[in-house]
Amino acid sequence: MARPDDRAPDQLRPVRIQRNWLDHAEGSVLIEFGATRVLCAASVQDSVPRWRRDSGLGWVTAEYAMLPRATHTRGERESVKGRLGGRTQEISRLIGRSLRACVDFKELGENTVVLDCDVLQADGGTRTAAITGAYVALADAVAWMRERELIKGDPLICSVAAVSVGVVDGEPRLDLCYAEDVEAGTDMNVVCTGDGKFVEVQGTAEGQPFDRAELDALLDLAAGGCAELTRLQQEALNR
Amino acid sequence: MARPDDRAPDQLRPVRIQRNWLDHAEGSVLIEFGATRVLCAASVQDSVPRWRRDSGLGWVTAEYAMLPRATHTRGERESVKGRLGGRTQEISRLIGRSLRACVDFKELGENTVVLDCDVLQADGGTRTAAITGAYVALADAVAWMRERELIKGDPLICSVAAVSVGVVDGEPRLDLCYAEDVEAGTDMNVVCTGDGKFVEVQGTAEGQPFDRAELDALLDLAAGGCAELTRLQQEALNR
Amino acid sequence: MARPDDRAPDQLRPVRIQRNWLDHAEGSVLIEFGATRVLCAASVQDSVPRWRRDSGLGWVTAEYAMLPRATHTRGERESVKGRLGGRTQEISRLIGRSLRACVDFKELGENTVVLDCDVLQADGGTRTAAITGAYVALADAVAWMRERELIKGDPLICSVAAVSVGVVDGEPRLDLCYAEDVEAGTDMNVVCTGDGKFVEVQGTAEGQPFDRAELDALLDLAAGGCAELTRLQQEALNR
Amino acid sequence: MARPDDRAPDQLRPVRIQRNWLDHAEGSVLIEFGATRVLCAASVQDSVPRWRRDSGLGWVTAEYAMLPRATHTRGERESVKGRLGGRTQEISRLIGRSLRACVDFKELGENTVVLDCDVLQADGGTRTAAITGAYVALADAVAWMRERELIKGDPLICSVAAVSVGVVDGEPRLDLCYAEDVEAGTDMNVVCTGDGKFVEVQGTAEGQPFDRAELDALLDLAAGGCAELTRLQQEALNR
Amino acid sequence: MARPDDRAPDQLRPVRIQRNWLDHAEGSVLIEFGATRVLCAASVQDSVPRWRRDSGLGWVTAEYAMLPRATHTRGERESVKGRLGGRTQEISRLIGRSLRACVDFKELGENTVVLDCDVLQADGGTRTAAITGAYVALADAVAWMRERELIKGDPLICSVAAVSVGVVDGEPRLDLCYAEDVEAGTDMNVVCTGDGKFVEVQGTAEGQPFDRAELDALLDLAAGGCAELTRLQQEALNR
Amino acid sequence: MARPDDRAPDQLRPVRIQRNWLDHAEGSVLIEFGATRVLCAASVQDSVPRWRRDSGLGWVTAEYAMLPRATHTRGERESVKGRLGGRTQEISRLIGRSLRACVDFKELGENTVVLDCDVLQADGGTRTAAITGAYVALADAVAWMRERELIKGDPLICSVAAVSVGVVDGEPRLDLCYAEDVEAGTDMNVVCTGDGKFVEVQGTAEGQPFDRAELDALLDLAAGGCAELTRLQQEALNR
Repeated sequence: MARPDDRAPDQLRPVRIQRNWLDHAEGSVLIEFGATRVLCAASVQDSVPRWRRDSGLGWVTAEYAMLPRATHTRGERESVKGRLGGRTQEISRLIGRSLRACVDFKELGENTVVLDCDVLQADGGTRTAAITGAYVALADAVAWMRERELIKGDPLICSVAAVSVGVVDGEPRLDLCYAEDVEAGTDMNVVCTGDGKFVEVQGTAEGQPFDRAELDALLDLAAGGCAELTRLQQEALNR
Repeated sequence: MARPDDRAPDQLRPVRIQRNWLDHAEGSVLIEFGATRVLCAASVQDSVPRWRRDSGLGWVTAEYAMLPRATHTRGERESVKGRLGGRTQEISRLIGRSLRACVDFKELGENTVVLDCDVLQADGGTRTAAITGAYVALADAVAWMRERELIKGDPLICSVAAVSVGVVDGEPRLDLCYAEDVEAGTDMNVVCTGDGKFVEVQGTAEGQPFDRAELDALLDLAAGGCAELTRLQQEALNR
Repeated sequence: MARPDDRAPDQLRPVRIQRNWLDHAEGSVLIEFGATRVLCAASVQDSVPRWRRDSGLGWVTAEYAMLPRATHTRGERESVKGRLGGRTQEISRLIGRSLRACVDFKELGENTVVLDCDVLQADGGTRTAAITGAYVALADAVAWMRERELIKGDPLICSVAAVSVGVVDGEPRLDLCYAEDVEAGTDMNVVCTGDGKFVEVQGTAEGQPFDRAELDALLDLAAGGCAELTRLQQEALNR
Repeated sequence: MARPDDRAPDQLRPVRIQRNWLDHAEGSVLIEFGATRVLCAASVQDSVPRWRRDSGLGWVTAEYAMLPRATHTRGERESVKGRLGGRTQEISRLIGRSLRACVDFKELGENTVVLDCDVLQADGGTRTAAITGAYVALADAVAWMRERELIKGDPLICSVAAVSVGVVDGEPRLDLCYAEDVEAGTDMNVVCTGDGKFVEVQGTAEGQPFDRAELDALLDLAAGGCAELTRLQQEALNR
Repeated sequence: MARPDDRAPDQLRPVRIQRNWLDHAEGSVLIEFGATRVLCAASVQDSVPRWRRDSGLGWVTAEYAMLPRATHTRGERESVKGRLGGRTQEISRLIGRSLRACVDFKELGENTVVLDCDVLQADGGTRTAAITGAYVALADAVAWMRERELIKGDPLICSVAAVSVGVVDGEPRLDLCYAEDVEAGTDMNVVCTGDGKFVEVQGTAEGQPFDRAELDALLDLAAGGCAELTRLQQEALNR
Repeated sequence: MARPDDRAPDQLRPVRIQRNWLDHAEGSVLIEFGATRVLCAASVQDSVPRWRRDSGLGWVTAEYAMLPRATHTRGERESVKGRLGGRTQEISRLIGRSLRACVDFKELGENTVVLDCDVLQADGGTRTAAITGAYVALADAVAWMRERELIKGDPLICSVAAVSVGVVDGEPRLDLCYAEDVEAGTDMNVVCTGDGKFVEVQGTAEGQPFDRAELDALLDLAAGGCAELTRLQQEALNR
């Protein structure tokens, strides 16, 4: 069966990366994976969390959230509910861990970069778009710090990008949209560095458990997708 | 003294109203008052709050929020803090009241329209931009309902628009940007209907108390600004 | 149509101001506007909020709340619900802003006065009674500080009083009781200084939007009511 | 050593019970034990909690709270903190249990009486004043129900009153004021029925553990105090 | 009528005290009163709460909780509900007060011992088992501190143990199991020191109010039960 | 370098599975992976969450928590903090998803099994011990339902077990204890079915990103560990 938008199984959706979408943030990116649209803002703070003080080391953290009408039907705001949902915290933690993988905290000095990833519209793959966009926002924030000589060296030791893969109708596919995501028997999110190593592999059997052959096929697809996203990140940063 | 962007005292900032900015919402508008940028989404729900059930009447409500990096320095998320701030609730209530002023709830039937106003970037006048944009999103949501024959008549009995006015350096000015807002001795937000009547008048002496002459001058300015915003709303709706 | 208690349209309800109703508070007032009864307590603290430290400036803040059985039917406690309602926060902010209008923070030194306004019984106009009573409690707290030579000069630069006005049955009326408040087409709360200037003007069209003539009539009524309340405050302070 | 107000060890402070202090509540009492002042409001509701429905039985519950400036120094509001303190919940539960001891829930039918006990001023013994006052408010609320024929029989099977006792300077004393309470080695709150039986006995060694002789002496004192309070309750109800 | 487990009215359930049940805690005890099973962990912290700093005095506090399936039907977690229940706080406060009765805070120095009492299985008497077990855990934690010479003297001035008593079918009984507890007309928890003095006496009439004779009988039973528990505590500490 | 307990790299810690550790729960297991000790209780409820009603399908959910002194230093209770941490929610979600993989919800009927996994002592691998133990508790709860003929068929379609693997000192190792976990460059949790398929694969680069060869080696180790745990589960269930 064809994909909803007639893509090849190993093809990404159209990706669009707009830098400097905000005036105030030290780095900001509006990233689109097809109809998924995430606003990533990097904020530089000249301090670190209490447990990190006087270590000489910096910190990078992330917060993920969804606007109430990013989805087909309106979701209640977590600020109104008065508590963060488990999914929100889980994704925020994933984004933070992923981005910390590309940072040398000694070079960052006792500064914190907060990455706010707000989903303006959701059509599957919001966490992977968020990670991919947040890297570009982080790179811009680091450049901003270097221009102002707030740091001397380069704290970025690699780049990171992320993509979802899944088995739909028995076929391994790259970068699932929402309609595919709900059909997927296996769903995996993979975060890679620019040189093709793995930072996070999170695979879940939504329906049937998966065997090693399926797992291998999905990892191959994901590695290819991340390589393409790495190229698009560099292209955006060179503009 | 000249205004930061050299506007005349009675001149609005450039206003931009983009309709249908979201794919899923029944009405959606990205409205800009200069650098202030608010995403207004109207969600139609075929039910009403418990206290309104079996009344035959509809309901309109609003929720206002700011992305953490909408402002010069990053603000903490209210979802993370676990409670809504007083300012957020006050503005949400103002937007809801203002929009309800233009709705005939009998014609709306037992449906609710939720207006989510999320500030993507803030440069003063976020609540007035939100009201002005939310009206356009509401009009689109009502049209969506009428097309699907979910309602028969027209629940919109008028339009509403809002603008801020204030006294800066002794001069009454229209549509303050953030830099003027912090300087203003008196700050007022005014919501008017399309035919020039008042829905809300909220004036606050930030520094010196104001006399009746100042109040009158501000009300005149605001009425003119709202008339111009009404024209821009109609223009957008006719596109 | 006559008013429920046969008052003239521009007549206040009987106002009663009892000073020193509490033994511990530095200033305390039980104020009554007819059946509305608000206990206002002023607490002097020899510190200021964190963001105000080392500024040499003082602070005044207010908290408004209602006892559960102040109203016709029992309301749930906000402490039990675990969150402050929007109305409570909005009124607390209004009272705080209004009282700050009469204070010279330099003269107050790095001290804070907290004004607790607890509604023991509600019959309309609770926020305006709270502001009017809180001023008297504040004046007593300031006198208490001066007696103990905690401050040298006089931080009170003016007095403030507040009253509600509204259009009921087409007639502009002063100081609405609850029965009138629910009938009012337009509802306005006005805070004035003792010399007749405006500190806050908050007008809301509950039903029909209002025109400039109505607005002008209401402002006239409110100014007269505040002048009378100012006289009663002085009378109480001179006792 | 003499007591701060020269009372005999077995003497109550002056007790004042003002009925119908509120206009809306079905029963309301302002009770004073010396400088301790508690407003007790009884609210009748024609329903019962979910777990009690269709049992044919009524319910009585209580909520205790303190105004922020009831005490020598201002306390933070629990509504602002967003959570009820342990002490508040403990006392609310005590008051509810105590008052339920005098009610026949079958005679009450599926109605609830909520007893709100708000401490306006605190000088020791607030929980015992609350219980003593709440009984009178409950009796008035029951009379209100009987007048309206909402119930037929009499759900009140006895009266309850409460008093604190403690050992100060080695001397057992009745009805401690705040200054004595902080000095007391042993502190006990006792709730009795009008015919002298015990409903609650809560004794705590604040300093030294107490022996059986001390316990016996305190129980004797408390029983006498409750008998006197029972007489004052009846006197108030007969006025 | 016989007791569910055929005990004599003045007989405890089988008591089992296992010390050092945890590897990390400075003191830990798994205590069983029949089927009631409570894990008591004592944690030593080299600091005191803010209000206690620079006093030279230590502190002891306790937290009580129940696992969701400690009971016959599953209870919701308080962490999931987002708030501590009144019963939980009340018992935590009781345990803390009881254990503080046996500590000389000067000898403890500016250290805190936190006593966590988690009910793994509940069959009545969980709070009394918790106090009895917590004392043993505290004694082990104190010994741990003395071995490491963190303190020089002995901060334990006595021991404490606790037991429940109640009137079931008109008969005063010691150490009620759950089935008896729900039947009890009067329910009392008593905390005694090792030398037979009272630390806490908390008696509640669940059904009928009780007279002095019943109260005396219950106090006698409880004193005997606590004496036996004291013996078992010493036996465990001597192993 | 040798492992802290001299295990072979592919060797599990001693595993102990005690069934029926609780009297009330329909299934309960105290599982130990070395010093890690988790109490898993399965509670059967004859209803399903609201969104699942009238579907004819059952539900399985899980809640994970840690006692405050399970760890080397005491952690604050989430019930006291008033909010669930991200880690807690993430692990609860993982356990629930994993256990749902072995259930045919049609055969379960409209019943819910709640799996409470409370960590009594933590030494690494708490989430994998929880999943492995929860399966045994679930199997016992299902047997309990079948004995009472609450369900007819067998809702268990497979078993699940889980283990952690990681790269420590360059060496892939099975079932990390806490001391190894903090040293691990890569950390992975793997959930497998009894027939060797994958349910969850969650790998995280704590330090250096990992390549495909390392990933493959870890997956091999984990598959072997899960097979051994499956055998131990069956052995326990056959006792």
